[in-house]
Amino acid sequence: MDLYGEKIGNLVSQLSRLPGIGAKSAQRLAFHIINMPHDQVVALTNSMINAKENVHYCKECCTFTDGDVCSICANEKRNHKVIMVVENTRDLAAYEKTGKYDGVYHVLHGAISPMLGIGPQDIKLRELMVRLAGDVDEIIIATNKNLEGDATAAYISKLVKPMGIKVTRIASGVPVGGNLEYIDEVTLLRALEGRTNL
Amino acid sequence: MDLYGEKIGNLVSQLSRLPGIGAKSAQRLAFHIINMPHDQVVALTNSMINAKENVHYCKECCTFTDGDVCSICANEKRNHKVIMVVENTRDLAAYEKTGKYDGVYHVLHGAISPMLGIGPQDIKLRELMVRLAGDVDEIIIATNKNLEGDATAAYISKLVKPMGIKVTRIASGVPVGGNLEYIDEVTLLRALEGRTNL
Repeated sequence: MDLYGEKIGNLVSQLSRLPGIGAKSAQRLAFHIINMPHDQVVALTNSMINAKENVHYCKECCTFTDGDVCSICANEKRNHKVIMVVENTRDLAAYEKTGKYDGVYHVLHGAISPMLGIGPQDIKLRELMVRLAGDVDEIIIATNKNLEGDATAAYISKLVKPMGIKVTRIASGVPVGGNLEYIDEVTLLRALEGRTNL
Repeated sequence: MDLYGEKIGNLVSQLSRLPGIGAKSAQRLAFHIINMPHDQVVALTNSMINAKENVHYCKECCTFTDGDVCSICANEKRNHKVIMVVENTRDLAAYEKTGKYDGVYHVLHGAISPMLGIGPQDIKLRELMVRLAGDVDEIIIATNKNLEGDATAAYISKLVKPMGIKVTRIASGVPVGGNLEYIDEVTLLRALEGRTNL
């Protein structure tokens, strides 16, 4: 990228570090940004800094929020006795989009993976345990249907069942090996309806 | 995106405005940015602002540069009597990557398109004409092999040939309907070698 001088080269290399952005897309984005009106570039960069500096974990469910607790945890109409456990905020968004789930969530920000060296202490499990001290009827485990998601489900089940709380797992309507965020809403609902006891 | 609060919603909507970034990628990028170390976010946004504020057109060939003239125009080893005319800087980069072209470039920043209402006055044609007043042996037209690129080539040819300058067009080694930036280097070289008089 020396071709265009250091400023563009630096922008392209910064953009290339983002997930899903290859060398060619980074170059295309860089030229687009240079051609954007100045105030639009400022709006873009401000939204990044602003989100980075003001967004943190909900102190209840650990999803991202710019408030103290997220809008779901703050909503008194939701059923706070049912907690759906998901791997990340995108999976929460996927279930939220169905519009049919009225419980609350818990975002683990990962899954147990011995392969990647991610243990129970590396995800938001302790935060989940703290919540279970309250009045909880059911934990619905909606981790992904893969090795890591299943291991995480098994681990949580073993921890929670002795506490006398019902533990369920969303049904295999979600294709094995698939990621929740890419599944259509109807399949997500079927999986929720067909959930089984663990 | 109300789900996550205004800060994330704003970031997602800003990211969605970028070319090739859909709603899902924007969401994924937004969460990635929030999870990035603070100094990395600052480096990313600074590179954007820095490029936007300091990059402009080379006063010779109209490509992007942060200097007065670009590194190619400033290079005395290049043959300044041969000018390759391309539609945009990405196409220049594609030919530059072959490492076999030793002339200079002229970047039009567009192509003539009656359909889109883009006329000769909307692209960097006047700047090309100014350069032809100097010592130029050949103009190689390397606009895309589509309707707009062909129209632009014909228009330039009609203007330049009466000036006694040789005008060539890269060969149809480039697939008809294709965009230069996605073509492999060998095909780009074949097209250069097989260029014909217009």
